[in-house]
Amino acid sequence: MDRQGILIIVSGFSGAGKGTIMKELTARCEQYALSVSATTRQPRPGEEEGREYFFRTREQFERMIADGELIEYACYVNNYYGTPRAWVEEQLEKGRDVILEIEIQGARKVKKQYPDAVLLFVMTKDIQTLMERLAERGTEAPEVIAERLRQAVAEAEGIEEYDYLIVNDDLNACVEQVHSIILSEHEKVIRNREKIARIRAELEELVKGE
Amino acid sequence: MDRQGILIIVSGFSGAGKGTIMKELTARCEQYALSVSATTRQPRPGEEEGREYFFRTREQFERMIADGELIEYACYVNNYYGTPRAWVEEQLEKGRDVILEIEIQGARKVKKQYPDAVLLFVMTKDIQTLMERLAERGTEAPEVIAERLRQAVAEAEGIEEYDYLIVNDDLNACVEQVHSIILSEHEKVIRNREKIARIRAELEELVKGE
Repeated sequence: MDRQGILIIVSGFSGAGKGTIMKELTARCEQYALSVSATTRQPRPGEEEGREYFFRTREQFERMIADGELIEYACYVNNYYGTPRAWVEEQLEKGRDVILEIEIQGARKVKKQYPDAVLLFVMTKDIQTLMERLAERGTEAPEVIAERLRQAVAEAEGIEEYDYLIVNDDLNACVEQVHSIILSEHEKVIRNREKIARIRAELEELVKGE
Repeated sequence: MDRQGILIIVSGFSGAGKGTIMKELTARCEQYALSVSATTRQPRPGEEEGREYFFRTREQFERMIADGELIEYACYVNNYYGTPRAWVEEQLEKGRDVILEIEIQGARKVKKQYPDAVLLFVMTKDIQTLMERLAERGTEAPEVIAERLRQAVAEAEGIEEYDYLIVNDDLNACVEQVHSIILSEHEKVIRNREKIARIRAELEELVKGE
């Protein structure tokens, strides 16, 4: 592939279904690679090392920070989460579109280092639905839900820093929409500088020859 | 419709097929409205007043300029071409996506007045194909083709001012691609400020209520 991959940053309210959308997207199209974060939080039942997360101790994680091995990291509900740099850059160079599912502080840090990244913000169709989904998940204590709600208010303050708003009403439609957005992004002039330079050179050659 | 239409500016090399793409797009989807330009050039066989162009005398056209009735106008191969403002704004307010097929000087003027406009640049898959299409059209004298080639070099200088590069290889694929780009553009955060404000207000209300 002669085209460079796109770095896709996905944030959104907890419970809006970003994880499900992105898993479905990577399952359908090989062009997408879902970045696996490192974290210090405990594995949930069924989670596997290297699949959902790289589970690390606080000490290990802090060494990764010190060695510059993370594109971004943040502390959330008392645990570290971070994005390993080497794997991401390798995938982008192969032409794959890499999806980072991170919160807004992380998104800001990544955008600074990768200004061509595309930022998606996922939300439910309304707040009522968001509350229902948070309650249904059933794995969280009420105080965690309350904390996530406060977090949602903080995240909502930053929506304008994102490029696209993804409303997750129907999963299938939503996955198609994200895919369509990324395909369109590949046609951006800023992502086709080489092709443009080639056409321009040919054209000038032709006019000179007249 | 509660959403605002998008102003779509389409430029590209003469012979790249922008007219055909845009006619096909408007034929397939009602959301698109193709702007009809005013011009002082003579009608070609089969062209109809108000369909391909509004044909005006030089005097009439210059009065439209003086009265500010045109979003942009330019002189090209010794004739005026311009975009009537009132019709465009009416369509945008109705929520329709309005397509302006204009050259780069006009595109720059429109972008200044409508910064949220989306700029598309249409090209053939290579320069060889462009030359073939210019020759095939058969309605132009060799000196007109040569002039268009020089014009193409000038237009190519400005490609970076456009948002998307549309390579017209297969017409059907190309029309689908443009449609997909416009649908994606509608999901841009900058085009959904009202929806975001509503969600944010609801969320803050909820947290206050706790």
